[in-house]
Amino acid sequence: MPQDVRFDLPFDTPVSGHLEYARARHLRWVWEMGLVRSRDGFEEYRSWDLPQAAARTYPHASAQDMVVLMNWFSLAFLFDDQFDAGRPDRADRIAEVARELVVTPLRPAGSRPRVVCPITLAWTQVWEHLSDGMSLTWRTRFAASWGRFLVAHCEEVDLAARGLAGTLGLEEYTAFRRRTVGIHHSIDAGERSRGFEVPAQAMAHPLMERLRDLASDTIGFMNDIHSFERERRRGDGHNLIAVLHRERGYSWQEAADEAYAMTTACLAEYVELEARVPAMCDELGLDADGRDRVRRGVEAIQHWINGNYEWALTSGRYAASKDGPVATAEQAGRGSVDDLLTV
Amino acid sequence: MPQDVRFDLPFDTPVSGHLEYARARHLRWVWEMGLVRSRDGFEEYRSWDLPQAAARTYPHASAQDMVVLMNWFSLAFLFDDQFDAGRPDRADRIAEVARELVVTPLRPAGSRPRVVCPITLAWTQVWEHLSDGMSLTWRTRFAASWGRFLVAHCEEVDLAARGLAGTLGLEEYTAFRRRTVGIHHSIDAGERSRGFEVPAQAMAHPLMERLRDLASDTIGFMNDIHSFERERRRGDGHNLIAVLHRERGYSWQEAADEAYAMTTACLAEYVELEARVPAMCDELGLDADGRDRVRRGVEAIQHWINGNYEWALTSGRYAASKDGPVATAEQAGRGSVDDLLTV
Repeated sequence: MPQDVRFDLPFDTPVSGHLEYARARHLRWVWEMGLVRSRDGFEEYRSWDLPQAAARTYPHASAQDMVVLMNWFSLAFLFDDQFDAGRPDRADRIAEVARELVVTPLRPAGSRPRVVCPITLAWTQVWEHLSDGMSLTWRTRFAASWGRFLVAHCEEVDLAARGLAGTLGLEEYTAFRRRTVGIHHSIDAGERSRGFEVPAQAMAHPLMERLRDLASDTIGFMNDIHSFERERRRGDGHNLIAVLHRERGYSWQEAADEAYAMTTACLAEYVELEARVPAMCDELGLDADGRDRVRRGVEAIQHWINGNYEWALTSGRYAASKDGPVATAEQAGRGSVDDLLTV
Repeated sequence: MPQDVRFDLPFDTPVSGHLEYARARHLRWVWEMGLVRSRDGFEEYRSWDLPQAAARTYPHASAQDMVVLMNWFSLAFLFDDQFDAGRPDRADRIAEVARELVVTPLRPAGSRPRVVCPITLAWTQVWEHLSDGMSLTWRTRFAASWGRFLVAHCEEVDLAARGLAGTLGLEEYTAFRRRTVGIHHSIDAGERSRGFEVPAQAMAHPLMERLRDLASDTIGFMNDIHSFERERRRGDGHNLIAVLHRERGYSWQEAADEAYAMTTACLAEYVELEARVPAMCDELGLDADGRDRVRRGVEAIQHWINGNYEWALTSGRYAASKDGPVATAEQAGRGSVDDLLTV
């Protein structure tokens, strides 16, 4: 199944002009922080082109912030890959590290982690920069969004460790996918990247909550489609196409077609609801500044839907055919060639 | 030094009429959930009279909710006491359990805990009830407030385990105390207890944030005064009087007097700022319903300042002189006669 499945997205979004400047600094940082520990790991990491993802999803960030956002992506994606199906006991270490990542934003920024490894040290440094200048309300929201994502990730690892990865029904899976995709905190970071905050009452409005959930569903399903070959290679049953294939008895192609239809349905509902944002602003009695901050909040969602899509079409992370040490590791059930959970 | 140090509080608050109804059910629950495991532990727990604390701090809760709020208090207070100075390695288990408590509100309510012990099982059950009917915005705020408290509690335990409990300077201690006292989430629960929510934009306003911080300081300092004898007995250096005694070279009486003066100064600033709430509501353009929800939000703070004060004057938890197994345990550096961190 090809990686470059195309969707018809209703918005274009810009790409940061700081991409190349930040990429060079970011790659040095990844190496220096020990987030890759082997030449194979580094080459694999480079092939993912996460700098492009950051430059597309946070197009308005300053040059310095762009480096930090790339740094953040690296630790999140690399941590995501630390499960090893051949070592189910590793689930406990993943949970321990994940919980350290959860509590970091709940401590004064810059505090030393209690669980020390390359991932937690990197996050401490990134969070100090990422939280800088943001309100308590934003930090609270980010911390909860980020925490929910990491907790869901641990559940995913625990299911895999118990050999239950492929047992969720469709409804259960889609609810779970919304939690594991990690889009809420990714959108939250959009405010930091552009130096603004969505008014609290708009963020608490059911329309805004629904838009964020629909963006999560859309991106999660798209990701399942684009990463299908990688996940099949890894034996990962947490993929919409795999669930449809198993649950509905669809052929792979039928399952892929249905996943595509579900994705476009989410996107269509998102677009329909987005049109109601001005009425929400009226209802909340927002002034011009408040409305402008809501507008930028919606743009942050669009940047994620579109930016992630454009990146995923070509990222080496999801390449359908791979060989070498990474493919060998993946076929053995390991997510990664490097161990990043030990000192 | 006597426990019943009096303050002149500028507001009276009601006491729930459900106190006795809920107390009986609560005490059964505490025993059935294994939150006390010995007769001595049960007698000690009873002497604290936490049901009175809950009935004063959440006077408008329904009878059923009152039981759950008491249940919540029991697990939080009992967990607070699980450190054993004679077993510093226990700090790791406390951190493990604390992190489980942190992530519970970040999972779908009712999920089984990953770290199982009486404390985590009790919290899972309480959270399912406590979160019921509350918005995502409230759950996010509560989860972050609660998480910050538990993380600070772990830092306190870690300092004690490393023999550094008595090394914080005054400024450092007061900042730390605001985090360890756990008032933010306690006030958050006031909304649940009365079935309302403070408008998000009011909660995000600097005035409201400052009121909540001042309430935390006031209650934290009062608690240090009322619990002084207990903490001296336990050898706990995390107490404002002890810090003033050490840092400023004050006699114990001078240190207690200064702690009293610092407390009344916080309270005075709180009262002064509270008078600005109507102007904040004007500034935010709140309608009558919004203003009423802000009013109840401020009352939730008052209920905590006053209710906690009235309870602490007589609670057996802070009794100046104690004997029997509990005093023996405390003098040996143990916070509790029962171990609640194992199955």
